[in-house]
Amino acid sequence: MTDIQRAAELLSAADGIMIITHARPDGDTIGAGFALLHALKALGKRCFVANGDTVPPSLLTVTGAETLPVEFEPEFIVAVDVAEISLMGALAPYGERANLCIDHHKSNKRYAKFTLLDENAASAGEIVYDLLGKLGVGMTREIASALYAALSTDTGCFRYRNNTPKTMRAAAETMEAGADFAAMNKIFFETVSKERALLLRELYANMEIFAGGRLAVSFVDLHDYSEDDYDGLSGELRKIEGVCASVLLRRTGEDEYKLSARSNEGFDCSALCAVFGGGGHEGAAGANVYGELSDCIGSVKAAMEAQLRRNA
Amino acid sequence: MTDIQRAAELLSAADGIMIITHARPDGDTIGAGFALLHALKALGKRCFVANGDTVPPSLLTVTGAETLPVEFEPEFIVAVDVAEISLMGALAPYGERANLCIDHHKSNKRYAKFTLLDENAASAGEIVYDLLGKLGVGMTREIASALYAALSTDTGCFRYRNNTPKTMRAAAETMEAGADFAAMNKIFFETVSKERALLLRELYANMEIFAGGRLAVSFVDLHDYSEDDYDGLSGELRKIEGVCASVLLRRTGEDEYKLSARSNEGFDCSALCAVFGGGGHEGAAGANVYGELSDCIGSVKAAMEAQLRRNA
Repeated sequence: MTDIQRAAELLSAADGIMIITHARPDGDTIGAGFALLHALKALGKRCFVANGDTVPPSLLTVTGAETLPVEFEPEFIVAVDVAEISLMGALAPYGERANLCIDHHKSNKRYAKFTLLDENAASAGEIVYDLLGKLGVGMTREIASALYAALSTDTGCFRYRNNTPKTMRAAAETMEAGADFAAMNKIFFETVSKERALLLRELYANMEIFAGGRLAVSFVDLHDYSEDDYDGLSGELRKIEGVCASVLLRRTGEDEYKLSARSNEGFDCSALCAVFGGGGHEGAAGANVYGELSDCIGSVKAAMEAQLRRNA
Repeated sequence: MTDIQRAAELLSAADGIMIITHARPDGDTIGAGFALLHALKALGKRCFVANGDTVPPSLLTVTGAETLPVEFEPEFIVAVDVAEISLMGALAPYGERANLCIDHHKSNKRYAKFTLLDENAASAGEIVYDLLGKLGVGMTREIASALYAALSTDTGCFRYRNNTPKTMRAAAETMEAGADFAAMNKIFFETVSKERALLLRELYANMEIFAGGRLAVSFVDLHDYSEDDYDGLSGELRKIEGVCASVLLRRTGEDEYKLSARSNEGFDCSALCAVFGGGGHEGAAGANVYGELSDCIGSVKAAMEAQLRRNA
């Protein structure tokens, strides 16, 4: 573990820096990584961002023309928003020699020589924001855009409970420094892939609301879509007024489904999923179910109704 | 017109104050109205909020146990977020004697004796936030909750271009003062009515994406739903990646449809709607179309394709 002052000193003394972001990159790892990149470049350092995966098109506004492959043999390695080495994909060998890790995940495995961990930060970007001051780097437009991507995406555009007054004020600063927040918000929060739209069509077409409007279940078939297209899909039906728990069955093979349960307060999804040999948290849990679709839906509905009675 | 200092003086000198909010009340008029109510009550004034309409359940968290009907004959009338008297519904007679109007709509009709207008404010709540300081009222939890509702809803949870660094910092203050922002965000931005879910089912079921993925059209039937259930529905298909314009046909009667067009940059919806005798703006326009559904969809698709060629 280290503190922000020491982390800034380590970075100030370093050169030939590789910034590692995590696989299946999101706005936080890319935003925080590129904000740090621009800050270190402003200090005259040789520096690059690396990611084992392809960066999704929605984040190209952050990465710009920067390329992500390894560009030179690093002298100093810093991982951003990466809780454990296994999340680095192909870059894992570099992770083993990480000098510094900047992260906000409680689950961080402390694999780096120094770990700058702030569990109260809504995003790794927020920690990089703090570092800017210690590094003596001003908020350029490039840094601001990258930071805004991190601050906004990890809070669902300032919606989730992890959002803090500090997040809001940091975002205000990035807006003042020229981050095109409205354009980014449109890309991050107002754009769905065609595949996602087709999944929503299926989700709604197969939707059943039952138990007097308290429960909902739906099903989507097997597709050759990306995992990003499914992100958050299982929570859609829980948004319906009056619905306290919803289940999405997603076909994963012949007579094989992935069950995802989501609930508002007062319905234990992990207890529901335990019935099918799965588990998770009270608000979100999963299991695998096997059999004919109609049988599976029938037993899921029965188990949900039983769970609802248990919670009542 | 007046300035914030003078408006604060008027309110400080007043008593027996009626706060008028607009019909089909939203988070801004209710949030700003109740923030002002709590501030004036903190100054020891007799004061109430009035609205000609029913307040939607989602805003009961803001209004609390306060009732909205007229409670006494007012000595001083202040309208909040109401651009013109016709938007007051049944309260219009009071509007004609309004002493003060606090608003952020450029289109404000200056019907009140004094108008405190800030077109750059993302919400009327933001102006009430400024007034608090001038009135010498601290940010209580009640005021903070009401203000947060105003600040967040009029910016789509800080997503739209009208959001400013000032909005973000004001929201940060309300969060510090105890506004349960996450609970409100869930109600405002993560909850859909059952009717809305059924409309989404129809919207996706009838969705056609054409012109190589650049255009989308859909249709929903006639229902006995509230107008709130339709809010923003016509923009759903425009969110699909690659789609630059979408049209929703909503049945309004036998062989009668309301056409709503929405577009991203580079497609003129008002030109499209002019073909059907309608109009509007480049990004959002409407018209009425008549005939058999399949004929209507056919001519809408043809007109959209023609418009796409014109813009290309």
